Amino acid sequence: MAQVFLPKGTRDLMPAAMNRRLKVIEIVRRVFAQYGFEPLETPAFERIETLTGKSGGEDEKLMFRILKRGEAGKRGEVDAGLRYDLTVPLARMIAMNPGLPMPFKRSQIQPVWRADRPQRGRFREFYQCDVDTIGTPSLLADAECVAVVHDALNALGLTDFTIKLNHRAVLRALSVAIGATGEAEHALLVAMDKLEKIGRDGVAKELTSKDLSKAQIGQLWAFLDGEAIPGAEAAEAELQTVLSHAADLGVDLSRVKIDRTLARGQDYYTGPVFETVLNHSDFKGSISGGGRYDGLIGMFSGKQSIPAVGVSLGIEPIFMLMEEMGLMPDTATSTQVWVTLFSEETQSASLQAAAQLRAAGLCVQVSTRVGKLSKQFKDAHNRGVPWALVIGPDDIAAGGVSLKEMASGEQWAGSLSEAIARLT
Amino acid sequence: MAQVFLPKGTRDLMPAAMNRRLKVIEIVRRVFAQYGFEPLETPAFERIETLTGKSGGEDEKLMFRILKRGEAGKRGEVDAGLRYDLTVPLARMIAMNPGLPMPFKRSQIQPVWRADRPQRGRFREFYQCDVDTIGTPSLLADAECVAVVHDALNALGLTDFTIKLNHRAVLRALSVAIGATGEAEHALLVAMDKLEKIGRDGVAKELTSKDLSKAQIGQLWAFLDGEAIPGAEAAEAELQTVLSHAADLGVDLSRVKIDRTLARGQDYYTGPVFETVLNHSDFKGSISGGGRYDGLIGMFSGKQSIPAVGVSLGIEPIFMLMEEMGLMPDTATSTQVWVTLFSEETQSASLQAAAQLRAAGLCVQVSTRVGKLSKQFKDAHNRGVPWALVIGPDDIAAGGVSLKEMASGEQWAGSLSEAIARLT
Repeated sequence: MAQVFLPKGTRDLMPAAMNRRLKVIEIVRRVFAQYGFEPLETPAFERIETLTGKSGGEDEKLMFRILKRGEAGKRGEVDAGLRYDLTVPLARMIAMNPGLPMPFKRSQIQPVWRADRPQRGRFREFYQCDVDTIGTPSLLADAECVAVVHDALNALGLTDFTIKLNHRAVLRALSVAIGATGEAEHALLVAMDKLEKIGRDGVAKELTSKDLSKAQIGQLWAFLDGEAIPGAEAAEAELQTVLSHAADLGVDLSRVKIDRTLARGQDYYTGPVFETVLNHSDFKGSISGGGRYDGLIGMFSGKQSIPAVGVSLGIEPIFMLMEEMGLMPDTATSTQVWVTLFSEETQSASLQAAAQLRAAGLCVQVSTRVGKLSKQFKDAHNRGVPWALVIGPDDIAAGGVSLKEMASGEQWAGSLSEAIARLT
Repeated sequence: MAQVFLPKGTRDLMPAAMNRRLKVIEIVRRVFAQYGFEPLETPAFERIETLTGKSGGEDEKLMFRILKRGEAGKRGEVDAGLRYDLTVPLARMIAMNPGLPMPFKRSQIQPVWRADRPQRGRFREFYQCDVDTIGTPSLLADAECVAVVHDALNALGLTDFTIKLNHRAVLRALSVAIGATGEAEHALLVAMDKLEKIGRDGVAKELTSKDLSKAQIGQLWAFLDGEAIPGAEAAEAELQTVLSHAADLGVDLSRVKIDRTLARGQDYYTGPVFETVLNHSDFKGSISGGGRYDGLIGMFSGKQSIPAVGVSLGIEPIFMLMEEMGLMPDTATSTQVWVTLFSEETQSASLQAAAQLRAAGLCVQVSTRVGKLSKQFKDAHNRGVPWALVIGPDDIAAGGVSLKEMASGEQWAGSLSEAIARLT
């Protein structure tokens, strides 16, 4: 028998992980719905023309390609690829549905595929979790991105976070004001992004190597320390509007911080950008990021610009953090009661009891072993099921059932309805 | 601008459909969990060796093939394929996890991909919804398949169904008893399967063309009318055990019918088989099917046989039927309240009200238009949102809010907390 493997960089999501993930998704979906973000799903693959239509970024290079069906496939012809994000499919959908009422607000929680080099905690198949508002320039939509992240993280119990906020036009004005335009602007953004990691000395060193003068670097520090950036007034005012709307929407502003170094990688952002990090955590990555990108969604619609703003929850790091922080420990099982089968004679009574427990809303697994209770208790224990129910001849004589709490080993006997009351 | 399309045979699941599908999945998952079926997800693609390891059926021919990454990919080499069912991945997972406690019960609700000729209502990407119990020959597991389908359909409100039950060994014995073995056995099963459609005359005609005698066909009718089939005693007794367990588990046996013609297509079934149809419905297909298949799950494990039994809910026809039967009509939106923005001056009050409605658990969308209430009401109406909330200068003066019921046009004014009480 040949050995069997998973494809490189993929994994099975076993019940313990899945129970946690479904719970997280349920909480997040609820918050999204409370803000009017309606669920959308798009196909796993798109036409190759759709995926390569975007001004060929890194993502596209990592795309999995699918062979055309039939004879063409035998010649190696490709006509589709697995989606590598949820934004290109959204843009395609918007172009195909010109009659959609605007603003259109959608949430989308689906896997994407990227043929990245697999690393610890990074997979070639992983879930993305996006909300976007299409078709309105209103900064209320930007504020809602901040609010929805704020509410979702609170609902998940990940309460010690900071949402950083910046504006692409602030960065633009900053670059112009210190005379770092063209290639120098890119170098500036890249260097500033490392500020937390390498400190001002490190950034200064990097910028010096890119031919920025001491005076320019000094001016940068002044701007980062709060000096007004000429030409950034309108963008700064927009950020204040976003903050004011967010406060009205119930966002705790002590969790939100304007950060003039925040750029977010993608070139397509055009307005406010946001990113969320956990405070006092070993996890240094962001757990959410997004911004306004008015130029992208129109790419298939034949329009210059369709206003759009969205935010992505880093659902994979969130799954991981929820587990590591014990906020939602892996539950190997959702089963609450293991119904044992004492003997062939008592089996019917046990099955009927299982049906009544289920009717009361409990999750119940019935043993497929009959007799040898100690083995059945071990089955329950090994799976982490908290209670076992026994109906033996004594219980039948007494017209009742026995319950065993697996953690303590304590036993209890009484009527089935009393048992249900204990368990629910 | 080039026109944009979806890949052939695929679709976007828009909010109206998604809201319904998520609700159906939630109900079904709950029933699965009540029976101890724990959720599993496997990757969208498997290694090509895994997918072609099975004794090459029709499904494999319809597989989407994925190019190997890197240089080899450029030469058209294939190393993976999209899964075409949930059973092959389950068998692969079981082989990779030999330490799993048995019996292992899993549910799996994920899309599969088949390059079938697209037809009305049939897509190349569609969800499957399976539960399987691996590792026990206990007929309790078979009975649970019947019970879980029974409970799930009832929970969904699809209550007028019949679960048909048969046993592969009964079919075997029937074929032997009427002397239709080898190729004739296959012809017999195929013909019997059409009984409902073409009637006894039609089946007789088909069997005559396959060289079955009048006496053989007469014997078939006798068996179908209830005459004991020699050699089928053990299998018949197993079916009675399944029925008895199912009754103990709360299954209404008037919904279950032993049907000696039921074969289920797949060759891999080895014991009881079951199929569910809707009574008094235009939908003639099955909405669930499954059976015991003790030879298949071991295929990657180097074992002759791992006992396994499972059932598939036809979740795509169920989604369709729930809509057609009005059991869960498409809800274009889950938004309950459209918060209007009367003017720039009252905007803060409206946003704060939205936050309070959300805190009370309501799903709320805030208008991105400011002013021109009639347009905002139209926005709410077009989306099917049942209520609009207004905070105008009069409301602010009175310290309250106004509510408009979109269907009736009726207006109401009062305090925000009274409004929340009306809405929740």
